[in-house]
Amino acid sequence: MSTACVIGLGSMGYGAATSLLRSGFGVRGVDVREEVLRRFESEGGTACRTPAEGVQDADAVFVFVVNAQQTDAALFGERGAVPALGKGAVVIASATVPPLYAETLGARLTEQGLLALDAPVSGGPGKAATGEMTVMASGSAAAFAAAQPFLDAVAAKVYRLGDTPGMGSRVKMINQLLAGVHIAAACEAMALGMHAGIDARQLFEVISSSAGSSWMFQNRVPHILDGDYGPQSAVDIFVKDLGIVLETGHALRFPLPIAATAHQLFMAASAKGLGRDDDASVIKVYADIAGVELPKKKSTP
Amino acid sequence: MSTACVIGLGSMGYGAATSLLRSGFGVRGVDVREEVLRRFESEGGTACRTPAEGVQDADAVFVFVVNAQQTDAALFGERGAVPALGKGAVVIASATVPPLYAETLGARLTEQGLLALDAPVSGGPGKAATGEMTVMASGSAAAFAAAQPFLDAVAAKVYRLGDTPGMGSRVKMINQLLAGVHIAAACEAMALGMHAGIDARQLFEVISSSAGSSWMFQNRVPHILDGDYGPQSAVDIFVKDLGIVLETGHALRFPLPIAATAHQLFMAASAKGLGRDDDASVIKVYADIAGVELPKKKSTP
Repeated sequence: MSTACVIGLGSMGYGAATSLLRSGFGVRGVDVREEVLRRFESEGGTACRTPAEGVQDADAVFVFVVNAQQTDAALFGERGAVPALGKGAVVIASATVPPLYAETLGARLTEQGLLALDAPVSGGPGKAATGEMTVMASGSAAAFAAAQPFLDAVAAKVYRLGDTPGMGSRVKMINQLLAGVHIAAACEAMALGMHAGIDARQLFEVISSSAGSSWMFQNRVPHILDGDYGPQSAVDIFVKDLGIVLETGHALRFPLPIAATAHQLFMAASAKGLGRDDDASVIKVYADIAGVELPKKKSTP
Repeated sequence: MSTACVIGLGSMGYGAATSLLRSGFGVRGVDVREEVLRRFESEGGTACRTPAEGVQDADAVFVFVVNAQQTDAALFGERGAVPALGKGAVVIASATVPPLYAETLGARLTEQGLLALDAPVSGGPGKAATGEMTVMASGSAAAFAAAQPFLDAVAAKVYRLGDTPGMGSRVKMINQLLAGVHIAAACEAMALGMHAGIDARQLFEVISSSAGSSWMFQNRVPHILDGDYGPQSAVDIFVKDLGIVLETGHALRFPLPIAATAHQLFMAASAKGLGRDDDASVIKVYADIAGVELPKKKSTP
């Protein structure tokens, strides 16, 4: 039986790990949170406390941590994965990272005799749980071949975007530019609408079926209508991801006025202490400035 | 047989007028362009050169001109519609106008013994042609009752948003805020992606099925991929519509940083002489600044 390791059992990693279990793989899950590891064990997974322990006998390693720094630590840090991996194993790097980092990482893994796939994902926790993520991947034909059975278990769609690491992360970066702008714009629009006296639920219904709609508008505005800012994806994720977009624009000398403005709004929400709340919390920046009363969460009995 | 008048046979008004014809109404179309009037006659409509002539015997008047100034001229200007309309006729005002103008217009029409519906539309020329527009309407129960058979002919969906004119235009304004931001963001994202070496068609395909997608991204990016900037909706429409959004925000003392930034990009495209080109031309602002080569239009043999 092939064995997979998943480093980082956040909502995306956990969904990937359980999808791999359902497909019959042996799965070793690495996390620092004991309660997450116990839950994973109860579903038939093997709990591991360090990457080095997790990658024993693994044919493929998914890295589902938050950013480039954590990716580096998981792979090359103390008790990291790379020295413990057998030659020819494939590393599937799925955190959203700067494209230049993804390129360099690919080269470093190749030097170690490993196969490298630059493979950020999209779809949110729901699609992760059902094994229907979208994967934006680039890497060598050998890396794709080695990763294929594992990707089949976690993804509904795998885009092959190029034969070297970097292109997957470039495409993901563009997706995050749009996703972040659309969340901030949804918050700006809903706040103005409420301030102008429009019923919020009716506004959501009309826009959802009109030309002003977006995937993010339809996904995030219900959080606002329900007054529920429990983090499905946190404000600080877009502080980071739009930060990557702007750094890349800076390096390429490419002006990004809309992404830069949206980034400032996530920064403002984070500055208000909302960094770990749901990213729809950006609407509170507008609401607090202009005195808009937002829908309250229904208290559960 | 009931008679309808459509003032302004642009792409939206022309679609409404032919949809009314298909539903069996007598339809008088008003425009200043002879070739449009001749085409309308060939489809069974009655061609009229002035609003006063067009509204003879009309039970309902659709006003499908471009803005508030043209709406005012069509209704109250020289050879305007209002003095020529019979008492109890319904005026269906469908241009995108400032919400405060829509409110005042409703009061002025009511004073003249007319029924007033604030009824901006969405859906684009395609949906207009097939009688499947979305209408965002507000007005009295009597105005809705009088307008209903005519609205049924032109719209797939009529939202009843309130019992006085103004609310329809407020909701349309929020739709335009989002639509405008999404177009500008699509241009920023596609230009950065191409500059970073991503294949434009592949990028479009991935984003279209990912969380970064929007109605406008899917509708406008194909114009960029085909290098076809023949105006389906012109840059200057969003110079106007985001202008209405910002004026309203100004009046309400409500800050709109993202809409303001997007407006500047439409202004930049208009300043480059592209005001009458398709609004996807905003990408040329980025392309010219950063030296991105955009897809060319295939020459037809």
